Amino acid sequence: MKKLINDPEDVVRESVQGFGHAHDDILTVFEEPPFVIARKDAPVAGKVALVSGGGSGHEPLHGGFVGRGMLDAAVPGPVFTSPTPDPILAATKAVDSGAGVVHIVKNYTGDVLNFETAADLALAEGIEVETVLVDDDVAVKDSLYTAGRRGVAGTMLVEKIAGAAAERGDDLAAVAEIGRRVNANTRSMGLALAPCTVPHAGEPSFTLDETEVEIGIGIHGEPGRERIAIESADALTDRLLEPILEDLPIASGDDVLVLVNGMGGTPQSELYIVYRRVAEVLAERGISVTRKIVGNYVTSLEMQGASVTLLKLDAEMTELYDAPVHTAALRWGL
Amino acid sequence: MKKLINDPEDVVRESVQGFGHAHDDILTVFEEPPFVIARKDAPVAGKVALVSGGGSGHEPLHGGFVGRGMLDAAVPGPVFTSPTPDPILAATKAVDSGAGVVHIVKNYTGDVLNFETAADLALAEGIEVETVLVDDDVAVKDSLYTAGRRGVAGTMLVEKIAGAAAERGDDLAAVAEIGRRVNANTRSMGLALAPCTVPHAGEPSFTLDETEVEIGIGIHGEPGRERIAIESADALTDRLLEPILEDLPIASGDDVLVLVNGMGGTPQSELYIVYRRVAEVLAERGISVTRKIVGNYVTSLEMQGASVTLLKLDAEMTELYDAPVHTAALRWGL
Repeated sequence: MKKLINDPEDVVRESVQGFGHAHDDILTVFEEPPFVIARKDAPVAGKVALVSGGGSGHEPLHGGFVGRGMLDAAVPGPVFTSPTPDPILAATKAVDSGAGVVHIVKNYTGDVLNFETAADLALAEGIEVETVLVDDDVAVKDSLYTAGRRGVAGTMLVEKIAGAAAERGDDLAAVAEIGRRVNANTRSMGLALAPCTVPHAGEPSFTLDETEVEIGIGIHGEPGRERIAIESADALTDRLLEPILEDLPIASGDDVLVLVNGMGGTPQSELYIVYRRVAEVLAERGISVTRKIVGNYVTSLEMQGASVTLLKLDAEMTELYDAPVHTAALRWGL
Repeated sequence: MKKLINDPEDVVRESVQGFGHAHDDILTVFEEPPFVIARKDAPVAGKVALVSGGGSGHEPLHGGFVGRGMLDAAVPGPVFTSPTPDPILAATKAVDSGAGVVHIVKNYTGDVLNFETAADLALAEGIEVETVLVDDDVAVKDSLYTAGRRGVAGTMLVEKIAGAAAERGDDLAAVAEIGRRVNANTRSMGLALAPCTVPHAGEPSFTLDETEVEIGIGIHGEPGRERIAIESADALTDRLLEPILEDLPIASGDDVLVLVNGMGGTPQSELYIVYRRVAEVLAERGISVTRKIVGNYVTSLEMQGASVTLLKLDAEMTELYDAPVHTAALRWGL
């Protein structure tokens, strides 16, 4: 294993410290309990707060989305391992202004349990918490770490749009409702060309031979639908798009947001080749791509691969997506 | 070779087409001659225009930096191969408003010759061109593709700061002067843990064994200073910083911008571990890190590795760096 790390045990701490220093204009990293990343001006008076988190290794998710217009705090666990309830509770308490807190939770068993426990503990301290569960991955139902569908790249869209709703002053129920609406209208599917290596494991999390591609990969390298021989980018993109278009109630004339997301180790040029094909297929079907975003946003360390996400937009979601945001990884209008 | 591509011959065209479609709010891609990426509102009346370019495979450089406050056009050549004079001339003519054009050229023999020819041809058509040569890489003097030092990640800082000078209305000589001043105050050095594969070559551009690191790598995988056994991230970071600090006239009390740049296939978490060490060493020396930026900006396809760049700032450079920018890869204030 060759990585730009010191002791594998220190990867998350040192990375979050570096991140905190690099972005000290917009956020703060708590030293105790470790690793919570919070918006610098939190709690923001009167505003519903958003907290997300999960295993590390998916950066910029979630810490990269902490800031004005998006998350109030992110709780990074160990690599690919849920954070415990303690730091989730600490984050929740630190950012609550009294208006309540929305937990945005990717649908993995550990995350669901630990956020649930933290929400119960917060309620015992008088903090109202609403939970938005994200399960946008159409690849598999039930998996290594999940009952039901997994939460993947669509998470950033839930965080962006719900974050904008909180920023404009929506109340707790309304922020949670729009977050759930985004999730209900979002579908994703990914593929991998090459695995990643978790630092403390030291070995790749799975193996693919020189010609194999895993279709429907999860963001922890967990298996997808099938393992096939490599095909052209256009054919592979179609394999991601088809299950999404079968599942998402969408028709000619509808507006969608397209997110082409890199898994961390794929060159940007390849992501744009995938995007090109997505745009082509949607144009053929008469679906309008009114918003689009291409980049490495919800990654699996250095895994090579990509995912495609479609969000069926309505006017309110579009307006909230366009609202100003200032985080380390997503910034516009500010 | 496993890549998300169709025919290797079509990689640049398809990627640029996808890029053009994804960012059609801010830029246009010329179909004839192929591949020029231009700011949508170019030529901007009265404004000095900036044109850069070079071999593809370093994305987001240069196309990702086309837009308000930065480049007016980018000319992507074949992967790791300079564009010919024709598209450079076409870009120059397309964006010139009459105020002249600055060519920002990384110091590689092919780029230097082809931009020079294009500048001569532009002059023959009555367009004034100033050239800013970027040669920030302290690793080697003369190399596989260069006489003198190579231009690497510092290029984006030249493009950002000179682009802001043009945007505020500086004339041709002044924009070129500030571009040269940025280059003169910028030093970079990089390392690689794993190579990349050029699509039409089909094989990795070099090989490193399971424990080797190439110190002083170029952005085309060309050799650096030495090949060593893997060390901790902190020790490796020190190996990049030392030659920079030896070469850059900088002292306690000075202000610097730190850029930690990923080579394309390195997880963001590792880049922040490198940044953390850079900040630590500079703090020890009493040097103030007043601006910092961490991410994949000047890449080598999926190469794993990172580079460190320091720019010794003055008040004017800082103000121009902070000025609003709206490109695909760099955006703030807009």
